[in-house]
Amino acid sequence: MPMIYWFDLMGVAVFAVSGALAAMQAGLDLFGLLVLAAMTAVGGGTLRDLLLNRHPVFWMKDTRYLLVIIASALTALVFGPFPEHGLMMLKVVDALGLALFALCGTEIAEEQGVKPLPALLMGTLTACGGGVLRDVLSGQAPLLLRKDIYATAAIGGIALYFLLKAAGLSVRWAFVIGMVGVAALRLAALQWNWQLPALQMLQLG
Amino acid sequence: MPMIYWFDLMGVAVFAVSGALAAMQAGLDLFGLLVLAAMTAVGGGTLRDLLLNRHPVFWMKDTRYLLVIIASALTALVFGPFPEHGLMMLKVVDALGLALFALCGTEIAEEQGVKPLPALLMGTLTACGGGVLRDVLSGQAPLLLRKDIYATAAIGGIALYFLLKAAGLSVRWAFVIGMVGVAALRLAALQWNWQLPALQMLQLG
Amino acid sequence: MPMIYWFDLMGVAVFAVSGALAAMQAGLDLFGLLVLAAMTAVGGGTLRDLLLNRHPVFWMKDTRYLLVIIASALTALVFGPFPEHGLMMLKVVDALGLALFALCGTEIAEEQGVKPLPALLMGTLTACGGGVLRDVLSGQAPLLLRKDIYATAAIGGIALYFLLKAAGLSVRWAFVIGMVGVAALRLAALQWNWQLPALQMLQLG
Repeated sequence: MPMIYWFDLMGVAVFAVSGALAAMQAGLDLFGLLVLAAMTAVGGGTLRDLLLNRHPVFWMKDTRYLLVIIASALTALVFGPFPEHGLMMLKVVDALGLALFALCGTEIAEEQGVKPLPALLMGTLTACGGGVLRDVLSGQAPLLLRKDIYATAAIGGIALYFLLKAAGLSVRWAFVIGMVGVAALRLAALQWNWQLPALQMLQLG
Repeated sequence: MPMIYWFDLMGVAVFAVSGALAAMQAGLDLFGLLVLAAMTAVGGGTLRDLLLNRHPVFWMKDTRYLLVIIASALTALVFGPFPEHGLMMLKVVDALGLALFALCGTEIAEEQGVKPLPALLMGTLTACGGGVLRDVLSGQAPLLLRKDIYATAAIGGIALYFLLKAAGLSVRWAFVIGMVGVAALRLAALQWNWQLPALQMLQLG
Repeated sequence: MPMIYWFDLMGVAVFAVSGALAAMQAGLDLFGLLVLAAMTAVGGGTLRDLLLNRHPVFWMKDTRYLLVIIASALTALVFGPFPEHGLMMLKVVDALGLALFALCGTEIAEEQGVKPLPALLMGTLTACGGGVLRDVLSGQAPLLLRKDIYATAAIGGIALYFLLKAAGLSVRWAFVIGMVGVAALRLAALQWNWQLPALQMLQLG
């Protein structure tokens, strides 16, 4: 499916930019920036491939991924201080990347014969793993600790994909609608500042 | 050995509860709680399987693990604020989980033809890896930095297992006594507040 | 190449000492110290082996690695508070370890049929991965966030290795010169306090 391949590279580019921006905020040097951009962009997919025993890992056989990362990171460096509408555009493309990585990761897991529940976990890992690595390595509070709907959007869209397949829809349509679901959830959460209620431990008297 | 299988699921349940409690303390939302519970419960065993090249990873072929995690995490959510004796019970069951994961991880490594020293490391990783992931991802000080005897209990019991086997005891009895050793060490450390002396760098004048 | 094997063990010893020193600074107990020493010494190479699907992981089949780690960590414990010139010596040997791990990791990746760009990434990971793990697990700011030239030295020397090979030099000489390049860059950075300019996000008005 060549169109998915291009979407995939676009997702990699967006996540590389997000890693590069985090590196600049943390005051890293040039090579730290490249390393962090690569970790963010392919970290989730790499963990997925290790867990599914898919070798060689995708960016080892297709060097285009690393080239896209380097180009994206350097672009982020040059245009670094995005004006306001640039940042908004980045968030929109990031939502698309999240959606694509979530569904692609799920489908790749299914191709390896994994059942729906672990496949959903693999999709979530593919979509969110790079961001978690970025945060831990750049000394920020990990993604999971943030209050905006992110992993939740991935899980929601993947669950929708499985429901639609179970209801008899073709894989292709379930895939597309699930993807739209992830992106829509994420963008709506950004637009209206949605967040799940934080769970608190009650203090018993 | 089906009894070990049930023990194993019980260990997964306990570690999932511990991850869910950490998630609540960190103020995560529902899906963050599920992800953290899963990481804590199967993180160590997953790292072990990757390092030993055992595929598919155990929770991919047997979905029961993920179902137990979801059920345990939701239970922790509902009964979240454990009264005092509930927390104590959790620590006791956690000690059993630690003991079981330590010895099972060691035996699985031995089955793969690994020598005693790396097998001891694999057992320790199986028992403590999930807790380390939980701490890093929920923004707490990593397990290793805490002063109470935890990894030390795992290492002690596994070493006992190897000593007993070397002394001619059957694998089965060495396994059981090693497990009791881990749990006893951990519980004694909790009861009497034992800790190893922290190692400090002396300041030279 | 048996000489490389001895260099490799020496690199493991040095990184184990660096992990043990970090453990002492963080106030860990004896077993935490051993675990951290092992993570620092073989963490990078282990990640490399997992990504390249090389099994069994190197320290599982050759127990000498773990024995060297234990001996080094205990030595660090005894001679812990290095006098000033001891610390300097450690940094010199650490630069040699960095150089060796960087080039060995790259060559191992090439042997597995990996192309230059991902092989460079593998070499960098082998050399710097253990240090990153050490920092995350001992609660320090990750290596990447520090300002001194470290990963940059590894990347520079590996790039030199590829350039020399492309220019027609034999693998053996390219390897040696690349290694000298890493060590020289690292030592010069230490000596004259070189650092890459940190990249900052400009604040747009």
